Amino acid sequence: MSDATREIEALIELMARLPGLGPRSARRAVLHLIKRRGQVMAPLAEAMAGVARNARECAVCGNIATSDICDICSDERRATGEICVVEDVADLWAMERGQSFRGRYHVLGGTLSALDAVGPDELGIPRLAARVAQEGTREVILALNATVDGQTTAHYIAEALEGTGVAVTSLAQGVPIGGELDYLDDGTISAALRARKRF
Amino acid sequence: MSDATREIEALIELMARLPGLGPRSARRAVLHLIKRRGQVMAPLAEAMAGVARNARECAVCGNIATSDICDICSDERRATGEICVVEDVADLWAMERGQSFRGRYHVLGGTLSALDAVGPDELGIPRLAARVAQEGTREVILALNATVDGQTTAHYIAEALEGTGVAVTSLAQGVPIGGELDYLDDGTISAALRARKRF
Repeated sequence: MSDATREIEALIELMARLPGLGPRSARRAVLHLIKRRGQVMAPLAEAMAGVARNARECAVCGNIATSDICDICSDERRATGEICVVEDVADLWAMERGQSFRGRYHVLGGTLSALDAVGPDELGIPRLAARVAQEGTREVILALNATVDGQTTAHYIAEALEGTGVAVTSLAQGVPIGGELDYLDDGTISAALRARKRF
Repeated sequence: MSDATREIEALIELMARLPGLGPRSARRAVLHLIKRRGQVMAPLAEAMAGVARNARECAVCGNIATSDICDICSDERRATGEICVVEDVADLWAMERGQSFRGRYHVLGGTLSALDAVGPDELGIPRLAARVAQEGTREVILALNATVDGQTTAHYIAEALEGTGVAVTSLAQGVPIGGELDYLDDGTISAALRARKRF
C-alpha cells in the first residue's frame, strides 16, 4: 500500500482494531478526522491520551475511573447496603442508564471459565465476600447475563456467599418492556409464565 | 449520565461523532481501549495527534500528505503525462488499491453543487487546467462517481479542458468483475450492452 503516507497508514491500522470498525470504515473514519483535524481530530487525540493516562480500575468495585476510587463508590448518597454484581463495566453502565439502582457495584470482569483459566480469584469473588462482611451488606443483586456462563458464575457466587447472612437476589426474567410475544424466544416466554404474578 | 467520569464521557461523545460509530458502539470502543490503555490506547492517541499535527493537502494534487508535496506527486517513477481526476481522497486510495494507474492525480474535494455553493474554483478546476498546460499532460482520466453530481462535474471538466489538446477519457462502465447479471441494476446492464466489444 502506497496510498497514504506511512504515518496515516499506521493510524488506519490502529483504528481498524477497534470493535465495530474494519479496514474500510477505519479508512473512512481517518479521512473524516483528517478533514476536521483542527476541530475534531486534535481534541479527540488529546481526550484519548488523557483517558489512557488517567483511567484505572476502582480499587473497591472494579469500575473504570479516573481516580483510585470511582465516582459511584465515593458518592455518599449511594446506599452501601446493596451490591449489584455485574460481569463487565459495560453492564454497570447499562444498569446506571436504567437509573433505578442506587446502591454500589462489584464488577467481575468476566465469567468463570475453566477453558480460559478464569477462576474465582480472577473475578475478585473473595474480595466481594470480604466487602459483604466489611460493609455490612444486606443484599447482593446478581445482574449477570442470562447466558450459560453468566448463570454458572451466578450460582458459584450465591454458594460462596452462603452462611454470610446476606440476601442474594437476581434480576427478574420475563417479557421486556415493549416486547411482543410473537418475537420472543421460547425460553423467555416459559420464564415469564413461571414467574407470573397477580395482575 | 453519571455512568462514567466526565473525562471518559467526553471521549465517548467525540468517538460517537466518527462515521460508522454511534453512541453504543462508541461506548464499546472506548471500553475496549481503556482495557488496553497501555498497548493500544496510548499509541492510538499518539498516532492520531501526530497525524492531526502533520497532515495537510498536497499543494499539487490535493491528496492528503504529511509533507507539502504528497508521496505520489514526489514519486519520479509516476508518469506525469496522465492525470486522474477523482472526487475525494477516498477515491484516490481506491484507485491506488487497484494498482493499475501509474500516473498522477487531481483531487477535486467534491462535486459541483449550486445548492452548496461549490463552484469550479472550490474544486480547483482552473488549477487542473493550469497543470495540464504546465506538465504537458497528454491524458486526463475522469474517475468520478457514476452519480448525477459526479457526471455533471465530469462534463464541466471535459468542457473546461476543450481546446487544450489534452485527451479526456473516463472509466469504462459495465459489469463488475465477479458480478452476476441477476443482481445488477438495469442501468448498468444497458451501459454494458451499449459498450459491448468483440469477444
